[in-house]
Amino acid sequence: MAKKIHNIQGIKLGSASSNTRYGTREDSLVITLPKEAKLSGKFTTNKLKAAPVTEAIQKLSLLEKGSKVLLINAGNANAANGPKGIRDVKKYCKEIASVLNLNQQNIIPFSTGVIGEALPVENYLKAFRKALTRLDNKNWKKAASAILTTDTKPKIISKEIKIGKTSYLITSFAKGSGMIRPDFATLLSFVFLDAKLSQSSLNKIHTEALKVSFEAITIDGDTSPNDSSILVATGNKEKTVKPGSLAEKKLSQAVIQTFKELSELLVEDAEGATKKIIIKVRKAKSIEQAKSVAFTVAESPLVKTAMFGSDANWGRILSAVGRDETVEDINEIKIQLNGQPLVKKGFIDPKYSEKSASRVMKKREIIIEIILGLGKYEFEVMTSDLSEDYVLINSDYRS
Amino acid sequence: MAKKIHNIQGIKLGSASSNTRYGTREDSLVITLPKEAKLSGKFTTNKLKAAPVTEAIQKLSLLEKGSKVLLINAGNANAANGPKGIRDVKKYCKEIASVLNLNQQNIIPFSTGVIGEALPVENYLKAFRKALTRLDNKNWKKAASAILTTDTKPKIISKEIKIGKTSYLITSFAKGSGMIRPDFATLLSFVFLDAKLSQSSLNKIHTEALKVSFEAITIDGDTSPNDSSILVATGNKEKTVKPGSLAEKKLSQAVIQTFKELSELLVEDAEGATKKIIIKVRKAKSIEQAKSVAFTVAESPLVKTAMFGSDANWGRILSAVGRDETVEDINEIKIQLNGQPLVKKGFIDPKYSEKSASRVMKKREIIIEIILGLGKYEFEVMTSDLSEDYVLINSDYRS
Repeated sequence: MAKKIHNIQGIKLGSASSNTRYGTREDSLVITLPKEAKLSGKFTTNKLKAAPVTEAIQKLSLLEKGSKVLLINAGNANAANGPKGIRDVKKYCKEIASVLNLNQQNIIPFSTGVIGEALPVENYLKAFRKALTRLDNKNWKKAASAILTTDTKPKIISKEIKIGKTSYLITSFAKGSGMIRPDFATLLSFVFLDAKLSQSSLNKIHTEALKVSFEAITIDGDTSPNDSSILVATGNKEKTVKPGSLAEKKLSQAVIQTFKELSELLVEDAEGATKKIIIKVRKAKSIEQAKSVAFTVAESPLVKTAMFGSDANWGRILSAVGRDETVEDINEIKIQLNGQPLVKKGFIDPKYSEKSASRVMKKREIIIEIILGLGKYEFEVMTSDLSEDYVLINSDYRS
Repeated sequence: MAKKIHNIQGIKLGSASSNTRYGTREDSLVITLPKEAKLSGKFTTNKLKAAPVTEAIQKLSLLEKGSKVLLINAGNANAANGPKGIRDVKKYCKEIASVLNLNQQNIIPFSTGVIGEALPVENYLKAFRKALTRLDNKNWKKAASAILTTDTKPKIISKEIKIGKTSYLITSFAKGSGMIRPDFATLLSFVFLDAKLSQSSLNKIHTEALKVSFEAITIDGDTSPNDSSILVATGNKEKTVKPGSLAEKKLSQAVIQTFKELSELLVEDAEGATKKIIIKVRKAKSIEQAKSVAFTVAESPLVKTAMFGSDANWGRILSAVGRDETVEDINEIKIQLNGQPLVKKGFIDPKYSEKSASRVMKKREIIIEIILGLGKYEFEVMTSDLSEDYVLINSDYRS
């Protein structure tokens, strides 16, 4: 059932092929934003930052007035390429700025693909030029497809929210699988909102949204040099949404929900994944503890392989919690799997039934609830299982 | 080529089968130690501690005079079994103490096997009784085999060291694969040394040895509730090795070497491993940084799958270093793989040759050198690659 994709006034998208890694598949995307648009950008914490990330961070901090353009290429990450990487990205931004008669400060680059291979800059430049001739505000599906690398499908989320008498639209797309592949560099996300917001509102909403979405998923614990998340408010409304207002709150909720749904699409399309696993840690003594435990369990290869094998292996889950550095004792711990009791007070729950546990393990969505009994904080992480296909995909990758 | 296994005066070993998980395979081991023996024990840091670990820690802190006995069973970890686990272990220790007319404080238990299944205590007790009738000081191979779980072979290291006119013997055996399988619980190691040492010398040597052996290997980053390392000095010499003496230093070096060789045997036998990978981090600003970087790289699924696929994927190694929390910059970093240049000053080394790198990647032992250029400290970690077989073994495990 195809869901409606809302076009966002003022946002135009065009794509083309660079005829490099993917042959004639479109892999180069241009997005133009209106003059009134405000942008919030958040980037990888990896100290290995791709050249376009370094450029984008610098440019976003000093945006000039006027239209803004996002340039995205897939197939080459332009990461770990040293000074040449920077020269290449500056070159194509400058050329596109000159074509559009814009300040090059407002041309913001993003890349995803193989690390450490020189960017075929002329090819991508040619593709960006062609993409400019195809700009249209309906091109969401083409745009979502043009940024893909090893993803098996485009990931688009679009919503309409009514607040009072005003209707707001959100359309967004993303690629990658969280932190799964720093080599085939990873997460790019673009979310567009047709509202007028202050820069500080926008940043605040973005930060809140990331906490429960892209920062709450993991595939294999690796982070890429290219991870970028962009939230755009087009400014295309008469009234500014006031900071602290009910409207801001509702809009914020809708944006957060959009980010969560994009995250979910990423986890579902993670390499080799056969299951979606949600780890809910409750009653922790702090948010940090809840988060730490959730990630320790989510990234345990032994838990992930057990999930792949549909084994309700509570010993592995309990043991992963037990080795988390923030946990001092597991005497009050309770663990449930899709509602089935596994562990109570640190050992097997008397109500545990191998049969019932095995039955729920066969589902494609597994919820592991870990109730620490140490405090009142909680955190939730989404991940995938670890299958033979993950190993196959990642060991065969460059051969 | 079979290496000589030295018998250690005063150490007797006997094994038998409990007729439980492994059928008639011997899975129960008794080791008796002389009255003069001193013991040093180090245990898992997991908060989920198996019942025998809790008991062993308590007993070692209050050893009584007289002979000591080690009881080891494989096939059942007696972990996460709650109060019954403790009752069971106390029961068989008491019974064996009574057979031998010893204080039960001196009967020290160890277990390895499945977590969370009740211990078939009568079966193991019967096996321990039978093992007592088979005590002999030559039974090293049988002993090393009796403690195995999914290991594919016994792991024994034996040495003779001459210091001045005195000859010292070390014989040792271990099981498990570092931290690979908290469910089929993991590392047990027993090292016996025919020397007279003070308790503080013994503890110091043990701590030093662990730092560069079992604490410097990783398979998948998981730690077990049962990990136990025991170092025994039999006391079977006239003179005490003086703390601070040259003899103590030489003996210490031989013990450390023994621990390192045991570790290497564990990594070589890691589940599904096809390669041994040594990660040497140099020029770090602290030991902690060197260790952190080494483990981040060693535990990156992307690095491990690339190694399995014989792909000299320097981008994944560099990216793993870049995401390590202790690293602020990678501008001076240099990476080599079996001596081949990969990365220099944060990006691809101009001398990099895909052909040469591919050639060395086919070897079964890979040395990754990461020179951070931030200080003068170093740390070395040994690990294995991540293969499809690892996933197969760990997803099929309980089915």
